[in-house]
Amino acid sequence: MNKNRLEAFSDGVLAIVITIMVLEIKFPSGDEWTDLQPLIPVFLSYTLSFIYIGIYWNNHHHMLHTVTKVNGKLMWANLHLLFWLSLIPFTTGWVGENSFAAFPMAVYGIILLMSAIAYFILQRLILHSQGPDSILAKALGKDLKGKLSPIMYLLAIGASWIDPAISGAIYLFVALMWLIPDLRIEKMIIAETD
Amino acid sequence: MNKNRLEAFSDGVLAIVITIMVLEIKFPSGDEWTDLQPLIPVFLSYTLSFIYIGIYWNNHHHMLHTVTKVNGKLMWANLHLLFWLSLIPFTTGWVGENSFAAFPMAVYGIILLMSAIAYFILQRLILHSQGPDSILAKALGKDLKGKLSPIMYLLAIGASWIDPAISGAIYLFVALMWLIPDLRIEKMIIAETD
Amino acid sequence: MNKNRLEAFSDGVLAIVITIMVLEIKFPSGDEWTDLQPLIPVFLSYTLSFIYIGIYWNNHHHMLHTVTKVNGKLMWANLHLLFWLSLIPFTTGWVGENSFAAFPMAVYGIILLMSAIAYFILQRLILHSQGPDSILAKALGKDLKGKLSPIMYLLAIGASWIDPAISGAIYLFVALMWLIPDLRIEKMIIAETD
Amino acid sequence: MNKNRLEAFSDGVLAIVITIMVLEIKFPSGDEWTDLQPLIPVFLSYTLSFIYIGIYWNNHHHMLHTVTKVNGKLMWANLHLLFWLSLIPFTTGWVGENSFAAFPMAVYGIILLMSAIAYFILQRLILHSQGPDSILAKALGKDLKGKLSPIMYLLAIGASWIDPAISGAIYLFVALMWLIPDLRIEKMIIAETD
Repeated sequence: MNKNRLEAFSDGVLAIVITIMVLEIKFPSGDEWTDLQPLIPVFLSYTLSFIYIGIYWNNHHHMLHTVTKVNGKLMWANLHLLFWLSLIPFTTGWVGENSFAAFPMAVYGIILLMSAIAYFILQRLILHSQGPDSILAKALGKDLKGKLSPIMYLLAIGASWIDPAISGAIYLFVALMWLIPDLRIEKMIIAETD
Repeated sequence: MNKNRLEAFSDGVLAIVITIMVLEIKFPSGDEWTDLQPLIPVFLSYTLSFIYIGIYWNNHHHMLHTVTKVNGKLMWANLHLLFWLSLIPFTTGWVGENSFAAFPMAVYGIILLMSAIAYFILQRLILHSQGPDSILAKALGKDLKGKLSPIMYLLAIGASWIDPAISGAIYLFVALMWLIPDLRIEKMIIAETD
Repeated sequence: MNKNRLEAFSDGVLAIVITIMVLEIKFPSGDEWTDLQPLIPVFLSYTLSFIYIGIYWNNHHHMLHTVTKVNGKLMWANLHLLFWLSLIPFTTGWVGENSFAAFPMAVYGIILLMSAIAYFILQRLILHSQGPDSILAKALGKDLKGKLSPIMYLLAIGASWIDPAISGAIYLFVALMWLIPDLRIEKMIIAETD
Repeated sequence: MNKNRLEAFSDGVLAIVITIMVLEIKFPSGDEWTDLQPLIPVFLSYTLSFIYIGIYWNNHHHMLHTVTKVNGKLMWANLHLLFWLSLIPFTTGWVGENSFAAFPMAVYGIILLMSAIAYFILQRLILHSQGPDSILAKALGKDLKGKLSPIMYLLAIGASWIDPAISGAIYLFVALMWLIPDLRIEKMIIAETD
């Protein structure tokens, strides 16, 4: 099986997911500044989700770079990840339209949590096929960010019942934590090539 | 004619089909758990169709891998398949919105049946151009799954008049039957390359 | 400039155009056969437009195959073609929702006419850069189909005021005339390569 | 990191942005010429935005052509550009629906301004990594068009309070100024290769 087509298909799905989210921002019928104001939370949730999809695309890109053999299991683990990410436009729109209300914020966290779990499964599969001395294994190290993220999402889901603003702060924090691209793999690949 | 562009175009269409389905999941105006409940059948039909498109992408990927020459006939047989698959978001949304009602479930089956027939025509065309000793011919063997699926869809379409739950069970069964990727072709290619 | 990226971008736009048309087929709120009936013209116009986009993709594919140098002019002539083709989902939905009414049918023809003119301009540009002895020039010959199509569209636009059914018949006829892929170029390339 | 995947992802997002804009053109329920008339501003704003996305795709294409090394910073600078461009369908629809009203016209300019700034940041990053003697540096020269555009957008945003027609004229002027593809880089590459 061809890795290029798996990458191209994933890129296609992620490019569509990141772009169709904008279709959930319905423009107001009025043409005044006051008509645009209710869209501020919609715009903010759009921005956060754009960053999350960007992070997934970036990390996915890095991880797939180390893959040489693609089999059926990997393909389905990848589709499983794309499935959860494909639901982000839905929760993004819902969270925005309800101005970060408690329950939608919890559902947003559940989708992020499921995406993180799906990413973890895909990562485990790739690591397993490459052995403990692979570039990816070295690059990930203890994979602190990967282990911390699901815990943070769980905290955020729980916190939404106290105050959804706490959930929002946690989602933002995790996004910023990952925004720094996975330089670890990058460095390893450079070191390996030299 | 270039095989790569045919693959890239098919991947593009399938990536869009699998992703725009999410636009059919309209988020509720309320922000409570009870507001999300009516979406459960919509979410379930989305999941089933996501798996079906994934299966088609995977099998299409394998089958095209064995193709070397692309001609006009093949291109149109491929577009014919994409045509039926492009209607899946429509039936998926309709089935979900109507909580698996009888007639929408039958229409869902008709689209799956037409897609299976289109896939079969494409497969025959490729087999015909490669001869009986080709990798694909060997890999398919008696092609039990390929022959069983249309019969199952017919059964499911008929069963929708008795109880649409039977149709749903059949669609799920066929999906799970195919979820195991077409390892037969995979094995043949590995054997051939060695 | 890179031909591959021009092809990839065009394929992307055409794959999206052909797929988002399905979003114009709004599923009915009811779940009976009578609820689906009003969608028959929508489904028919979808099918016709799917074939037209397929034809453009196919012919575009063939024509670009003969291009070696891409410059700014070619890029804009290509975008100009994509612009008119991008309006097809709009007219398709409008024609379908109004059951092939006279004025929407005329607008459908205008979009087809503008697309044909844009394709003709792109073709002229490529022919001009390749000279009269190029594969494309030989393959096109007198380009009867290319010259006949705009005339047919004009006839269909005019006929919509008498009876939109005549326009529909003409659009179908032109589509079937082109459905046979541009085997002329295919044959020339095979002959050249031998 | 692989430049091809960055290009492919950017092309994918731009192809989707340029195409989903058409979904904002809602066809009227009537089927007369008078029903289509209110869509004229929607169609005009669509055309202008189509040209803008085309310009960005073209210039992006040229600029990326000169890049050899892709790092995390570049990837995020690129996503930042795609973020602002992804909002163009929203403002395009809003401007069109409100027949070029003052405030939507200003917002349209803000999105164009932010896109221009994001493009400038991406350009600076690439220039910085290549040094002052690079093809891109030579090709850009004083980059008059790149420096003039944000000033024009600012003027247009301000002018919208006086008369939104002035803003429209400025947006059109800037688009036409860029429509001529970045032949400077093209010439330099040709000269370099010889």
